[in-house]
Amino acid sequence: MSSLDIDEKGKKAWEDTSDFANYFCVYGTIYHQKQMLSDDIRMQGYYDSIFKNKAQFQGKVVLDVGTGSGILAIWAAQAGASKVYAVEATDIAVHARKLVKANGVENQVVVIQSKMEDVNLPEKVDIIISEWMGYFLLRESMLDSVLIARDKWLKPGGALYPSHAKMYLAPIQLESDLRQKFQDYSNAMDGWRHFTNSTKSKFGVDMHCLGKLYQQEQSEYYMQTANWVELHPDNVIGEAAIIKDIDIAKCTFEEIKGVDSPFRMEVHKNAGLCGFSGWFDVDFKGSPENPATNNVTLSTSPYIGYTHWGQQSFLLFPPPSTQVSDGDVIEGKVLMVRRKDNQRLMNVQITHTILSPESKPGSTTKTQTNSYQIE
Amino acid sequence: MSSLDIDEKGKKAWEDTSDFANYFCVYGTIYHQKQMLSDDIRMQGYYDSIFKNKAQFQGKVVLDVGTGSGILAIWAAQAGASKVYAVEATDIAVHARKLVKANGVENQVVVIQSKMEDVNLPEKVDIIISEWMGYFLLRESMLDSVLIARDKWLKPGGALYPSHAKMYLAPIQLESDLRQKFQDYSNAMDGWRHFTNSTKSKFGVDMHCLGKLYQQEQSEYYMQTANWVELHPDNVIGEAAIIKDIDIAKCTFEEIKGVDSPFRMEVHKNAGLCGFSGWFDVDFKGSPENPATNNVTLSTSPYIGYTHWGQQSFLLFPPPSTQVSDGDVIEGKVLMVRRKDNQRLMNVQITHTILSPESKPGSTTKTQTNSYQIE
Repeated sequence: MSSLDIDEKGKKAWEDTSDFANYFCVYGTIYHQKQMLSDDIRMQGYYDSIFKNKAQFQGKVVLDVGTGSGILAIWAAQAGASKVYAVEATDIAVHARKLVKANGVENQVVVIQSKMEDVNLPEKVDIIISEWMGYFLLRESMLDSVLIARDKWLKPGGALYPSHAKMYLAPIQLESDLRQKFQDYSNAMDGWRHFTNSTKSKFGVDMHCLGKLYQQEQSEYYMQTANWVELHPDNVIGEAAIIKDIDIAKCTFEEIKGVDSPFRMEVHKNAGLCGFSGWFDVDFKGSPENPATNNVTLSTSPYIGYTHWGQQSFLLFPPPSTQVSDGDVIEGKVLMVRRKDNQRLMNVQITHTILSPESKPGSTTKTQTNSYQIE
Repeated sequence: MSSLDIDEKGKKAWEDTSDFANYFCVYGTIYHQKQMLSDDIRMQGYYDSIFKNKAQFQGKVVLDVGTGSGILAIWAAQAGASKVYAVEATDIAVHARKLVKANGVENQVVVIQSKMEDVNLPEKVDIIISEWMGYFLLRESMLDSVLIARDKWLKPGGALYPSHAKMYLAPIQLESDLRQKFQDYSNAMDGWRHFTNSTKSKFGVDMHCLGKLYQQEQSEYYMQTANWVELHPDNVIGEAAIIKDIDIAKCTFEEIKGVDSPFRMEVHKNAGLCGFSGWFDVDFKGSPENPATNNVTLSTSPYIGYTHWGQQSFLLFPPPSTQVSDGDVIEGKVLMVRRKDNQRLMNVQITHTILSPESKPGSTTKTQTNSYQIE
């Protein structure tokens, strides 16, 4: 078999099925469900969206996409839904069934173990509820499954919980993180020089020709990978720009594949710009025909507090950071696309320019572009 | 789609192709190759096996199964092989080609990117060389590929490098590791009690019914998973029993699927028995028809020093450890089988009984059986 055959076989294998092995299996443990159920901001957001809108759920037929432990389905039933279809692809569905029974809602909640696209329901539904959000909103690409459910099973005028989502990008200072990452990267390259010298002298093989590729691997690992962070509000040094605004009732599959947005942020303090950080909100507003009685927002902003989503930071490299001043404006563009080798992961590219009010027209800092993976 | 369909689809996906995604991709980075190339005991063992037996390699045709960076193939060429076929499934094959050229052996070494079973060579070979050993020898199941190569491509009387492998199991004391693992496990279960109470009181859902399954998950994770350790010789409290002895030239596929062996170990000091630890040696003896000039052994025993394989420890649970005395004998049985969900990982079961010389016939400690996964 030629190497081309193998390459294509490898890629095909990855696309077809590693998704089940790699993605769904993570969600199959109670440990992982417990992690998500212990996120109080997440829990309170969904709890309020249902129980502050009991009138919307009363007597309604509900579909929960990716029910996991079944928590949202149980809440919907407790809030008065007449029937809840709770769809879950992993074996955690077995446990969801147990929980449904233990909480006495087995007459209302039907747990269906299946991928969403393969489900066959006996009826259309009034409400679709789902906790589909990944890191920086779109990682995991699970919103796809919600749109599949929407297009096939939601009655006209039916409501999505959540109904809207927004992504934010803000300038940050994280000097120690930036220095540490760069130090780790430098140490790795020192290690490479030591390694190639010793392999040559002790074992007679010259490895220098792989140095550039090793450098690229290490740069990707240390510098070009977005980091999960729990930002302190003080780390945010300017306004957060909205880079994506999704109306889940109306958006297309194409629109949620990524981000392609200009941004403009005013800097609020004199600080070293180390990069950018991204987070998201989702809103529970119901639908125009069936609006929520009480709008609820679940936010993963650093101003709100800890969530398991945290924020994603995109550090500029190489250091040091660039000094910016209160009143400066950062203009740029963010591009986020799904990775070809794994549709649930993302590549991000951020281009930015710093504009200072005192500078003459046209005299701005050099435009800089950095690329990252969200792993 | 019914849950049965999904189950079978999931399993099939895993068996067919997650192997490529999960197993081979790990070996595709230069970082990982560097880790293995920085293991001096591994490097010196293979280096000596070739260069102390240059007469065996002179003018010979060699096949390197899973060449990785190409190091063994380059050495074989440097030692005088007339032709070396270096087979590698991952993209690291591209880098191996570069290294072959940078080291001036491109006229002897042919790098072939393919799985071993799909390779078509123009001739049979005199020597098969391969570094196929995983944790506790058999993890990764890569010896299968060597046997495939042996049966199809090795000339009669040809030699395998290495030619033999042995697995050892020894009684150990690792009191602090055992206590720590049990403490982590206990903390996890305390965390569960707190979690279920707070989920009930804050969010009205009763999760207690999943407690037993959570306990099982946590026990598997903390107590029933073998640990990579770098044992100090003082941790070994008795003789190491040989539990597998493989003649790679003769063994069958069935024989290398696992271990099913009784053992008997004499205790050498008064200590707390915390469990068992396993490691392996491989020997480079050539074949009876083409014996090595100088036998070389590569050992991962704790008496030799650090290797990236370390040793695998199997801790008894629950604590405390059992006191044993110099002269006691531990008898038992070890069973190691491939996991059904991933043939490259293993399940291990160890049954043991402590026999003290002073005890009357028949008065021994209770027989204890523990099960583990090698991840």
